[in-house]
Amino acid sequence: MGPRERREREKEVLRQEILDAARELFVKEGYENVSMRRIAEKIEYSPTTIYLYFQDKAELLYHLCEETFAKLVKTFESFEDNSDPLNCLRRGCRAYIDFGLKYPNHYRVTFMLPREGGEKRERFLQEKSMGRQAFNHLRSIVEECVRQNKFRRVDVEVTSQAFWAAIHGVTSLLITKPKFPWAEKNKLINFIIDTMIDGLKA
Amino acid sequence: MGPRERREREKEVLRQEILDAARELFVKEGYENVSMRRIAEKIEYSPTTIYLYFQDKAELLYHLCEETFAKLVKTFESFEDNSDPLNCLRRGCRAYIDFGLKYPNHYRVTFMLPREGGEKRERFLQEKSMGRQAFNHLRSIVEECVRQNKFRRVDVEVTSQAFWAAIHGVTSLLITKPKFPWAEKNKLINFIIDTMIDGLKA
Repeated sequence: MGPRERREREKEVLRQEILDAARELFVKEGYENVSMRRIAEKIEYSPTTIYLYFQDKAELLYHLCEETFAKLVKTFESFEDNSDPLNCLRRGCRAYIDFGLKYPNHYRVTFMLPREGGEKRERFLQEKSMGRQAFNHLRSIVEECVRQNKFRRVDVEVTSQAFWAAIHGVTSLLITKPKFPWAEKNKLINFIIDTMIDGLKA
Repeated sequence: MGPRERREREKEVLRQEILDAARELFVKEGYENVSMRRIAEKIEYSPTTIYLYFQDKAELLYHLCEETFAKLVKTFESFEDNSDPLNCLRRGCRAYIDFGLKYPNHYRVTFMLPREGGEKRERFLQEKSMGRQAFNHLRSIVEECVRQNKFRRVDVEVTSQAFWAAIHGVTSLLITKPKFPWAEKNKLINFIIDTMIDGLKA
């Protein structure tokens, strides 16, 4: 490895270290209560160093969310060869929930934290953001279900948002309420996905 | 009003003031980051006074949640004269979501905050807690839907948890992601409830 490559790699490692520290602190102490200085302290760097990587806290949060969405998109893509869109939807929903339960801090930061207002958050909605891409993945599977008459002629946008709400609901409750006397989790998760699908069948 | 009544009333007013301050601070700064002292400061009383009403922070949180659940139970009860259990379920789900959107801080404190472990949280699960009562309300409506053959012979417990997850999902996403390009909210909310119901029909 040449010195330039080594330097690039070191930068990438530090960047990831900052992201990991920020994610943990945002979840534990709340986004509003964490300063760039606090994140720097945690990984024992100067705030100045952190600012070389992320211009401010909102930028950091944006990249944390993009990281989560990128992981989700990758998972969705692994199902693309599947020819039955219903099966694809079922597996995609299941993968989303499993992802949230496996990486609760990623999930919390991206989908559950209250967040300050301002323009930065608009970036989540831009066409090219990973967040938008992740949602569009879900949307295109739903669209295919309608096109192949697996679903009634429902509104694709509303249906996609409804699926997102349903799978977010079970993921976030299982994370937030671990002591509730839940039914067997596997059964509950599959039941929600199947009920939504059955409710839309042609 | 006699002096004793007046004193009782003053106590009730202060108790509510403490609850309101705690709810606001827990949501804004995170449960873990708020001390009893901080709550006392906010309403300009001494911490000692607050401790006369609530023995600790967990006790305060418990009562905040009970307050939310009590409001929910009251809403559910107002639909009890309705003879069609499907309609009752539809209206109950709708009322739950409307409640969350109308009182986002009550909703956040009760259903969305990460929470420390420990024994106190077990109290939410006790048979007589308002939380359990609220869930049991939902459960009894679902049970009635199965009994009257409005639903297939589904597992009542799993189905009730699935409904809770679905309505929690849309409520919490609408609270957390106000800038997402949602479909018309009314349409989205009704669509989720109707899809779940359709997916369970006999």
